[in-house]
Amino acid sequence: MSAETSASYPVDEINRVRRLHERGRYDVETVHRLLDSAALCHVSYVIDGQPYCTPTLYWREGSRLYWHGSSASRMLRNLSEGEPACLTVTQLDSLVLARCGFNHSADYRAVMAFGHARQVENQEEKARALVMMVDRFFPGRTAQLRQSTEQEIKATAVISMKIERASAKIRSKGVGDDEEDYALPIYAERVPVNMVLGAAEPCKRLLPGVERPANLAPYREGRKLEDAVREAYCIAYAEVVGG
Amino acid sequence: MSAETSASYPVDEINRVRRLHERGRYDVETVHRLLDSAALCHVSYVIDGQPYCTPTLYWREGSRLYWHGSSASRMLRNLSEGEPACLTVTQLDSLVLARCGFNHSADYRAVMAFGHARQVENQEEKARALVMMVDRFFPGRTAQLRQSTEQEIKATAVISMKIERASAKIRSKGVGDDEEDYALPIYAERVPVNMVLGAAEPCKRLLPGVERPANLAPYREGRKLEDAVREAYCIAYAEVVGG
Repeated sequence: MSAETSASYPVDEINRVRRLHERGRYDVETVHRLLDSAALCHVSYVIDGQPYCTPTLYWREGSRLYWHGSSASRMLRNLSEGEPACLTVTQLDSLVLARCGFNHSADYRAVMAFGHARQVENQEEKARALVMMVDRFFPGRTAQLRQSTEQEIKATAVISMKIERASAKIRSKGVGDDEEDYALPIYAERVPVNMVLGAAEPCKRLLPGVERPANLAPYREGRKLEDAVREAYCIAYAEVVGG
Repeated sequence: MSAETSASYPVDEINRVRRLHERGRYDVETVHRLLDSAALCHVSYVIDGQPYCTPTLYWREGSRLYWHGSSASRMLRNLSEGEPACLTVTQLDSLVLARCGFNHSADYRAVMAFGHARQVENQEEKARALVMMVDRFFPGRTAQLRQSTEQEIKATAVISMKIERASAKIRSKGVGDDEEDYALPIYAERVPVNMVLGAAEPCKRLLPGVERPANLAPYREGRKLEDAVREAYCIAYAEVVGG
């Protein structure tokens, strides 16, 4: 384990896991691994005291999270000033049916990342972000595409948030009943759930002879989305798995 | 379509879909159908100006949303006073690879529901909620379980939020390139993603002869989670599909 991956995010009143705190993790390796294994997050922000929870695609680069949207969106207009935000990623792994209602649960892995979100104004940083927005999921793809126009670049706002605090919360034990309840003649089970890739559907208007490029290989039918997204991350940032 | 399902949630500055507003829907039928087809949501709330985004299991009953947690959790202590909240449910349906970076996207269905969240204090309402927290997903299951203890009931806080505003946002068109880009020799595709149930894993400590009850039939291997959750909802609330 490298010095970087053995480090932890600072823990304070904002990110300390309180409920079932034994499920809490703050080490950078756990937090980053979860962040790099998903495409969809939910971002919370506040306008005039009203909280909003918005789903969006996102990615991590170092200790920064990035997400995007049109310059016109409610969230982006607000966050461009540097607003407190919370970006959460959740992988649901199972539904858990126990022997009493209280122990019904779910297995899951979640990360909450806290920081101040700002619109990326620096043109160099924005140009890089617009490449990685695609290439982080499909390494090398931008070079295969029609180049972005000035208007498209202008219309795409990129938001960046340095992770100031983070916590991971993981439940993976399946059925966990009170010891005395195991003696009861009650059925209990764990129902696994997985986000799985279907067969890719090529655009019906492809020109003759245009074939699926090799760099999309991580995305194959039946694979877990998180495995493909994680593999793409490692290729895009040329890191070894686990880094 | 009944009078109820033809109704719409009011639209104002808080819930109006701004970015790509043609994707916005406000009708009760669309909003409720999406809410009834998922188990996991993300709830946003504010403490001292800091937004939090917390994943949790939830369910709908009429125009109310319910979710739960320990009385000790950060969110629940705050929301018990009736705090503004936003509960969001997102189904990711695909990743979309277009012929330029700008048109890369995802198909998804999302609902944002706004209201004021309060802890359920009324004992009758709480007792019903503790049953439906389980039975909404596994109809009839509470009657098969060891009864909840006073201590368990006390330790389980239930949060309720009347839906004051809501919006659904749906993208389902797959690849959508600029008309002139279809003439380019660039590969484009839609990669479907589905949340799928695995084979149920019976608890290893089941007593001999204890078999899987028939009421868990909606949860079978290979099925989409949302179809199982939707079927369970219809059975639990004795409604016809589509209602």
